[in-house]
Amino acid sequence: MPITTAEQYIQSLRGRKLNVYLFGELVVEPVDHPVIRPSINAVADTYKLAEEDSELGGAVSSLTGKRVNRFLHITENANDVVMQNRMQRCLGQRTGTCFQRCVGQDALNALYSVTYDTDQEHKTPYHERFRAFIKQMQEENFVIGGAMTDPKGDRSKGPAEQADPDVFVHVVERRPDGVVIRGAKAHQTGCINSHWLVVMPTMRLTEADKDYAISAAMPVDHPGITYIYGRQSCDARALEGGGADTGNAMYGGQEALIVFDDVFVPNQYIFMNGEYEFAAPLVERFTSYHRRSYVCKAGLGDVLIGAAATIADYNGTSQASHVKDKLVEMAHLNETIYGAGIAASHESKSTAAGNYQPDDMLANVCKHNVTRFPYEIARLAQDLAGGLMVTLPSDKEFDSSVTGPILRKYLVCRPGVSVDNRRRVLRLIENMTLGRNAVGYLTESMHGAGSPQAQRIQIGRMMRVDEKKKLAKKLAGVDETQDKPAKK
Amino acid sequence: MPITTAEQYIQSLRGRKLNVYLFGELVVEPVDHPVIRPSINAVADTYKLAEEDSELGGAVSSLTGKRVNRFLHITENANDVVMQNRMQRCLGQRTGTCFQRCVGQDALNALYSVTYDTDQEHKTPYHERFRAFIKQMQEENFVIGGAMTDPKGDRSKGPAEQADPDVFVHVVERRPDGVVIRGAKAHQTGCINSHWLVVMPTMRLTEADKDYAISAAMPVDHPGITYIYGRQSCDARALEGGGADTGNAMYGGQEALIVFDDVFVPNQYIFMNGEYEFAAPLVERFTSYHRRSYVCKAGLGDVLIGAAATIADYNGTSQASHVKDKLVEMAHLNETIYGAGIAASHESKSTAAGNYQPDDMLANVCKHNVTRFPYEIARLAQDLAGGLMVTLPSDKEFDSSVTGPILRKYLVCRPGVSVDNRRRVLRLIENMTLGRNAVGYLTESMHGAGSPQAQRIQIGRMMRVDEKKKLAKKLAGVDETQDKPAKK
Amino acid sequence: MPITTAEQYIQSLRGRKLNVYLFGELVVEPVDHPVIRPSINAVADTYKLAEEDSELGGAVSSLTGKRVNRFLHITENANDVVMQNRMQRCLGQRTGTCFQRCVGQDALNALYSVTYDTDQEHKTPYHERFRAFIKQMQEENFVIGGAMTDPKGDRSKGPAEQADPDVFVHVVERRPDGVVIRGAKAHQTGCINSHWLVVMPTMRLTEADKDYAISAAMPVDHPGITYIYGRQSCDARALEGGGADTGNAMYGGQEALIVFDDVFVPNQYIFMNGEYEFAAPLVERFTSYHRRSYVCKAGLGDVLIGAAATIADYNGTSQASHVKDKLVEMAHLNETIYGAGIAASHESKSTAAGNYQPDDMLANVCKHNVTRFPYEIARLAQDLAGGLMVTLPSDKEFDSSVTGPILRKYLVCRPGVSVDNRRRVLRLIENMTLGRNAVGYLTESMHGAGSPQAQRIQIGRMMRVDEKKKLAKKLAGVDETQDKPAKK
Amino acid sequence: MPITTAEQYIQSLRGRKLNVYLFGELVVEPVDHPVIRPSINAVADTYKLAEEDSELGGAVSSLTGKRVNRFLHITENANDVVMQNRMQRCLGQRTGTCFQRCVGQDALNALYSVTYDTDQEHKTPYHERFRAFIKQMQEENFVIGGAMTDPKGDRSKGPAEQADPDVFVHVVERRPDGVVIRGAKAHQTGCINSHWLVVMPTMRLTEADKDYAISAAMPVDHPGITYIYGRQSCDARALEGGGADTGNAMYGGQEALIVFDDVFVPNQYIFMNGEYEFAAPLVERFTSYHRRSYVCKAGLGDVLIGAAATIADYNGTSQASHVKDKLVEMAHLNETIYGAGIAASHESKSTAAGNYQPDDMLANVCKHNVTRFPYEIARLAQDLAGGLMVTLPSDKEFDSSVTGPILRKYLVCRPGVSVDNRRRVLRLIENMTLGRNAVGYLTESMHGAGSPQAQRIQIGRMMRVDEKKKLAKKLAGVDETQDKPAKK
Repeated sequence: MPITTAEQYIQSLRGRKLNVYLFGELVVEPVDHPVIRPSINAVADTYKLAEEDSELGGAVSSLTGKRVNRFLHITENANDVVMQNRMQRCLGQRTGTCFQRCVGQDALNALYSVTYDTDQEHKTPYHERFRAFIKQMQEENFVIGGAMTDPKGDRSKGPAEQADPDVFVHVVERRPDGVVIRGAKAHQTGCINSHWLVVMPTMRLTEADKDYAISAAMPVDHPGITYIYGRQSCDARALEGGGADTGNAMYGGQEALIVFDDVFVPNQYIFMNGEYEFAAPLVERFTSYHRRSYVCKAGLGDVLIGAAATIADYNGTSQASHVKDKLVEMAHLNETIYGAGIAASHESKSTAAGNYQPDDMLANVCKHNVTRFPYEIARLAQDLAGGLMVTLPSDKEFDSSVTGPILRKYLVCRPGVSVDNRRRVLRLIENMTLGRNAVGYLTESMHGAGSPQAQRIQIGRMMRVDEKKKLAKKLAGVDETQDKPAKK
Repeated sequence: MPITTAEQYIQSLRGRKLNVYLFGELVVEPVDHPVIRPSINAVADTYKLAEEDSELGGAVSSLTGKRVNRFLHITENANDVVMQNRMQRCLGQRTGTCFQRCVGQDALNALYSVTYDTDQEHKTPYHERFRAFIKQMQEENFVIGGAMTDPKGDRSKGPAEQADPDVFVHVVERRPDGVVIRGAKAHQTGCINSHWLVVMPTMRLTEADKDYAISAAMPVDHPGITYIYGRQSCDARALEGGGADTGNAMYGGQEALIVFDDVFVPNQYIFMNGEYEFAAPLVERFTSYHRRSYVCKAGLGDVLIGAAATIADYNGTSQASHVKDKLVEMAHLNETIYGAGIAASHESKSTAAGNYQPDDMLANVCKHNVTRFPYEIARLAQDLAGGLMVTLPSDKEFDSSVTGPILRKYLVCRPGVSVDNRRRVLRLIENMTLGRNAVGYLTESMHGAGSPQAQRIQIGRMMRVDEKKKLAKKLAGVDETQDKPAKK
Repeated sequence: MPITTAEQYIQSLRGRKLNVYLFGELVVEPVDHPVIRPSINAVADTYKLAEEDSELGGAVSSLTGKRVNRFLHITENANDVVMQNRMQRCLGQRTGTCFQRCVGQDALNALYSVTYDTDQEHKTPYHERFRAFIKQMQEENFVIGGAMTDPKGDRSKGPAEQADPDVFVHVVERRPDGVVIRGAKAHQTGCINSHWLVVMPTMRLTEADKDYAISAAMPVDHPGITYIYGRQSCDARALEGGGADTGNAMYGGQEALIVFDDVFVPNQYIFMNGEYEFAAPLVERFTSYHRRSYVCKAGLGDVLIGAAATIADYNGTSQASHVKDKLVEMAHLNETIYGAGIAASHESKSTAAGNYQPDDMLANVCKHNVTRFPYEIARLAQDLAGGLMVTLPSDKEFDSSVTGPILRKYLVCRPGVSVDNRRRVLRLIENMTLGRNAVGYLTESMHGAGSPQAQRIQIGRMMRVDEKKKLAKKLAGVDETQDKPAKK
Repeated sequence: MPITTAEQYIQSLRGRKLNVYLFGELVVEPVDHPVIRPSINAVADTYKLAEEDSELGGAVSSLTGKRVNRFLHITENANDVVMQNRMQRCLGQRTGTCFQRCVGQDALNALYSVTYDTDQEHKTPYHERFRAFIKQMQEENFVIGGAMTDPKGDRSKGPAEQADPDVFVHVVERRPDGVVIRGAKAHQTGCINSHWLVVMPTMRLTEADKDYAISAAMPVDHPGITYIYGRQSCDARALEGGGADTGNAMYGGQEALIVFDDVFVPNQYIFMNGEYEFAAPLVERFTSYHRRSYVCKAGLGDVLIGAAATIADYNGTSQASHVKDKLVEMAHLNETIYGAGIAASHESKSTAAGNYQPDDMLANVCKHNVTRFPYEIARLAQDLAGGLMVTLPSDKEFDSSVTGPILRKYLVCRPGVSVDNRRRVLRLIENMTLGRNAVGYLTESMHGAGSPQAQRIQIGRMMRVDEKKKLAKKLAGVDETQDKPAKK
């Protein structure tokens, strides 16, 4: 029976006997672990949104003819690409964190066209397999985790040149009915909260890297897989007992290292197997979707701007012109991110396979601004918060009968505002600028979907500098017959 | 017979006996004036584009059923709004300057819906009149100059409170068959190169300002109108005889002060007359179009990036990593402008009158970035140009038999590149960052369609800060029952 | 016997029976508390520096004729002010955190001249008392905590207008032999690690605020004082057992709320008592010293730049031009901070009392850059670090026999570099950009010594805009006889 | 008889029969040329300052025992270096342009120590010769033009590798009594307004470049020298007849190409001749002085800030909070430039020769900020100016009896302010941001004393990244015994 509610989703994660390690222990049940649960809640909200607003959170798939969760939908027109962005901003607003499903969504859409193109070239059966896989996922309404980033080892060397071949995921055995893969994927967002993983190569490959040209799907609870949980700033506050100090008690992100220890994948779930020249198109199409998926950060920005505006209210400074001006600046930067992202989506074009691919230049521009503006928005939020954000005593001091009354006496601010509400908002700002969700709002904004230099390389490729030179030469009146050809 | 070619357009401007003053003289024929002609060429290119690419430069109007110049087209769907942006960027690329027709285009589209709304409220006949006016303009294929900005006098006072009532355009006499208006409009882009002017109020008006609530059309060559030409940086180089020093010999912008000395307008060309409460919507809808019209500066940016890339080639530095990085940064900023602008257009919504209005937040965000990024792009262009850009001797030194050979000996750069091509490109960069077209690329980017603070006010209004506060309070766990209501 | 070594300093803090609350408990011995100890180590390093480099860490005081710790020294010439900056940068480099003694140092130097001026006006005996107090501190070689920032309550009201008078420290009883004070001071840096506190007013006061015009010294272990410890991002990692996860195991900062519950101060330790008009000069002179004391952040910047350069080495990316360029940018910003700070010190002028006061404009400029550049340096450090910084598993996963070997297999980077060294450096970058010392490097940089708007107000006051207008008018050829006087 | 007054200086320039070409003609008398004269006035102001404030504009030289113009003074202590900066800012405030004497000043100070070091190594007689030369200049109170920048030809090649050897100045003949040199120097600031030129190599040289290792002095009116004048934005306005349109009628900058056509220099004026390994130290010491000499731009910034504040007054917007905030931002950036520059000077150290050399890191940091902040200050000035700055009609329209009254009617602003004063201030802002002095305030700020990348290279060299890595590794607890040595 397919999952239809957030509650069913959470139930579906129970009892899976995953190999998850956190704080030195095998986690018995991730669903009940206080550090892990907020990340599950964030994914669950993608189901809740689909329940509450089926247009935004869902879409009718022409594969199945049914309304499916939008994260599982293959884009059928430019509006579908735009609607992903609207949904992403909305979920960012609702959770204030990374809700973890965009990698899967973007992997599905990239593989959809790449499997098609591979089949055209190699007469392979990947596209039909892949459509069958998507239908299966849509029928079950599952969460897909996309797994792309290999640990990479020595960065001056390619996959086939590494001292240890396992630092990139690769095929170690080919059987008639499938392949065996080994290796690891690092920084894997939401993987433990998914039902299936889709593995993809992480970079352009050469013929020597053929065994690394592997894309395949497998269930998250495959026994050959181990998950080692990544720790986040202030993660341990979730273990302290549920006061205000977590800042955002309900929602958080998740990253883990996934280790594939000779995992067998049957043929029906293999979507690339040696066609190394399609690794680069896969990465490029994926990043094109994914870089504009970072409009989610405009949703987080909305939360942080709201928190900053609230603390200014509480501090009694909201009418100061410099305070209002800083809020406007935050909004301006936040909407600049959104503008480039949604422009990339609006400008989508059809692929040969029929789904829609966003404008690559604008997608890169969106992400590149995401590597800058959230840091400035965070800086301004800290400015408006005041120093108390980092000198507030802990929940236990507020709960204590000795120190609690003292704190509530001395930390009063604008008349009528409760000291506890004030500290909750301060803790939220701390959470998003230094704490657990700063990981998602800042550092992931920097490196997710490619570090800044990756965007610059791509912008450099797509900026059509030769056409621009022609424009300039024409207006300047350059007469190239006066030049001698450069030897090069 | 309607104008169909650029050449016909230029002919149509001849012999109009306008009162144009420049450098202390009444200009006999603006078309032949070396300072004015480049601005006419820029407008002419809007006709040429329509000849060369009728999809981009034109559109089929449902008013007349005919293909008309896109600048005269009332938007009928979101794509029409988007296509304006594509055309604007293209013309920016072709001319490297302000081509002067966007004010008219945006005024038409704003008045289209405001006349409709006014009629709904006041049972006035403006909308039909206005449609008839547009049809007439489309039939003739005329250039419309939009005239909005009053000189404003003492900025602490409204129109009706000024010592001299004429510092805002107003009705001085009402007759059965029309009105007489007096006043001036400052910084009027391309007015002398237009065929008709459309006058509009410049700001929110109160009941006391009723006589200032006037919108009307009149021919540019109305005898009661005087034009006083604004000078631009380096404008006089156009008088020096046509060498490389102008930087962009073909194209330039134009601004003038228009003085209305008791100009009679018959009823059929009056579109607002006393309905003061519609001044604010008119200004807001106009600026919403117009702020995203500034994507034209991305077209100018393309030229300047191309010039910077060319000069790096000529200087032999184009392979230096810092040079490549600066070009990428310029492209990134330039596309960020474009992204927000075209996003505003894609997100257009229908008005009650049926035409399409862009997203106001994104339009303001686009323009606000335009008040910043061209300055940084210009700075980087100067960086790549090198100091020679401001120490190059004049054309006459290059033409001289004494100094010309010396300069061509000593200013050689990369082998094969002619010194004259090098200086042409340097002069183009000078033109766009210090010279005549810096007026359009920089200062007009700052103040056109409203100075930066105007955008900040509008962003502040539209940022929905209360919704953002709610998002933050919910995630922070704020319990408002703990607060006492603020007295305010 | 005076303290002479770091070890003696730490011993001197033991057994004082302070009322310190942290994590809901009265701390038995702060010296042994794993969260508190790193902050004590940072102060101890100020003693160690004086041992190792007596010129930098110490100075010969003309008050006692002896070499004293520089933090206790009254500046006797501009070089003394400069040497404070050199010491501060050095200690920032040694500890990577806030070493907590600058508030005391700057309070001593500000009070030195303000007590003198007060005596001149009021024939009070404060200056001699204060000199005696300094001598006593120098003899004992004690740490002074300066206590200035009141909680402030409703920010739209002054001290005397608050609903609860205690939200500003004030005199509640005057006796022949001294005064009794009540109230609190918030965000008090290093207070628990000090021996004596010097209380000062926090803002300009009016006659109504006379009881708030109090400056006095008292021992830290006065029984009427309670300390409530402020928590910092990731503070609890110090409780986890000493692995790499703390990032900087040795050093940390400290802030606490100090509550004065009717503390009696004998006359000899009172340095202001009702002379409200000297509150403003005291605050201004203090902030002038203190804003340029933030060159310490250039020392922390050196550490963070070094960490970023090291991780680039480890990642094998240190030869990439964009990596080198980012390191240069970080250094440039870091030295810009230092430049303005040390310029302020070099430009010091003598006060009436004879000590030296830095240039106020440059001191404010220094601090204002500190509210911006460390955030950008931190952003660049995160860029160079890569995403692993926020997805690294915890110490316990590295210590585990199950997961440790897996992590050391998959997280290898450049050949020869140990995975454990790699993660230590990543944890240090996390510590300084998101974790415990991000509090000092970022948020304290924003709000310490006054939030950004405070510097802008001060810069606005000191920018001598009228003189600048005169310069401009002269060069522009303005003829003011042509103007009519403005009514105002 | 030595020059003692500004008037005498101007007289001293008359009748020299220089070969100066401008606008295609040999200039009969530069002193009387309306384009050249403002640049002479700017140099003359350096004499006037010495008359009016002999402490600031002059110094007692231990070479002659007399008070000399500070521009001719060899620094004898750190305060002398600081005083240069104070004088430079003051002259920037007085003239609003480049006063052209810093290159000479900095060349003298750099050669002073380099000639000493060369003699130590090569037993050459340069230092004594050079001291004699300085004494001679001091006795006459002459202006020295430093000439460093060669045209450079193909930038991928060194001097000796060029197709045309003349693109770098070099020795073409060695005679017993002197040398003959040929070549050119580009962008030479104030050369025509000088009495003597000091030629220096422009870059690090190799043994193959021996003939290019030439430093020598010669009188400006040497018959073998030709000057080709560089044109500046809006330069021709000076020919229009002296109204407000020049913006700054009194002062301007000057750059020219100097061509040396086989100029003989007798031995006594030769200070380097083949000692190629001292070219690099000479360039480095010169740029170290010269990069911090750019604090002059803080003086220009004072003028531009004053102009922006004045126009805000005139526009009636000076009380708007965003206007005040922009002025503060301009002042902050301006003082940041000054701070790093004067810090570099304060931190000067003695050379082996005994003069004082500024701190190289801070000097580079100063200049690097100069390549950024004036552009932002200019942008903000244009923001405050309003669009009228670029749409003002010309002087002739204001002088006309037809259009003058119209303009004075419609361009009124705040009551009481004359329209003519308003336009004068607008023209000054245009002058400094787009016009003639924008060359000095912006583009020269970018490229003078080395383009931005030159500073970045130098900052990279001096940032002591290895020490910083050590600091980080120590605090992170890195254990290098765990690493295997990298092969490199």
